[in-house]
Amino acid sequence: MNTTLSNAQIMDMEHRKRAQLINSISGFRSVALIGTIDTQGQTNLAIFSSIVHLGSNPPLLGFIMRPDSVERHTLSNIMETGHYTINHIHQKMYEQAHQTSARYPKTMSEFDATQLTPLFKEGFMAPFVAESYIQLGMEFKERIEISINQTSMIIGEIKWIHFPDHCLSEDGFLDIEKAGSITSTGQDSYHTTQLLQRLEYAKP
Amino acid sequence: MNTTLSNAQIMDMEHRKRAQLINSISGFRSVALIGTIDTQGQTNLAIFSSIVHLGSNPPLLGFIMRPDSVERHTLSNIMETGHYTINHIHQKMYEQAHQTSARYPKTMSEFDATQLTPLFKEGFMAPFVAESYIQLGMEFKERIEISINQTSMIIGEIKWIHFPDHCLSEDGFLDIEKAGSITSTGQDSYHTTQLLQRLEYAKP
Repeated sequence: MNTTLSNAQIMDMEHRKRAQLINSISGFRSVALIGTIDTQGQTNLAIFSSIVHLGSNPPLLGFIMRPDSVERHTLSNIMETGHYTINHIHQKMYEQAHQTSARYPKTMSEFDATQLTPLFKEGFMAPFVAESYIQLGMEFKERIEISINQTSMIIGEIKWIHFPDHCLSEDGFLDIEKAGSITSTGQDSYHTTQLLQRLEYAKP
Repeated sequence: MNTTLSNAQIMDMEHRKRAQLINSISGFRSVALIGTIDTQGQTNLAIFSSIVHLGSNPPLLGFIMRPDSVERHTLSNIMETGHYTINHIHQKMYEQAHQTSARYPKTMSEFDATQLTPLFKEGFMAPFVAESYIQLGMEFKERIEISINQTSMIIGEIKWIHFPDHCLSEDGFLDIEKAGSITSTGQDSYHTTQLLQRLEYAKP
């Protein structure tokens, strides 16, 4: 049997229930850890599940930032330094990754709180997550305000990519499943994946 | 062994290879079919893998639209009618879903071309996909231009949700894996999922 809910019924739901439903209905999510540092050297690490591909030339990714969330240290650090990292999450670290969503004070780095390891390389200012197999070094480009609900999209350009050799195909496709990257749904559900198939470029 | 690529190396790649790499590096994607109709009654169906949750109160989703793509009929129909549907994809229909990305002329509906079934209900103007288990009826709210690479984010509010009863949890979480929804990576890779765990709300 199927259930139908109207907008009015959705708006009448208790707010945590509605948040669970609407967060899960958007589909599987690009979940990753965003690493930053402030100009005093204080690191921060936060989980985001709204990373979206914007284009390949130049290589741009966006993510959505809520105004009142624990992610605020991420935003202030990006604004201070212009740099951040995006680090894929795998099966052996998703519990630590989820734990970064707790409201720690700014003086407590989520790296310390979750025992994930900050990794600095290539003279890049922001910390990578050593445990991650796929790591991106990002340069801030633009913040777009989404006035309808006071969120922002943060847009950055990919400056560095680190990945395991054996995951790269001849045609440029990176097999992130082979690298163990996972996906999430809703606010708290984590999933591994199983390849169905890569399909050919579709023609009429 | 690991590979490191700099921005300059990425920009030097052959463009199709770069597109494959950058499309796969953003993580697993929210992939779904967007159904629309024009004021003449001509339906359109297109696959999108950039759907992103923007907020629950009101319930808002966004997706990214490229200016020069086959998705242009989707955009013009949304602008004409103000409505569209988002339909999850499952294992028995992903090949048809992928086929909607072929460049059909506007007079050829992708519903006909792929033998997916348009479904009209609740007086809602845009067609749902009958084969999909999770279907959303959306009302257009706002188009945000992303000038850095001439893409747009289309923002809509959820007006109707249809889903199988047995997928809804007590706390509002909708188990889209149980509903058979799949995810994608890159431009052409489709994946089922396997639950690791739902985690508790994280506290310091």
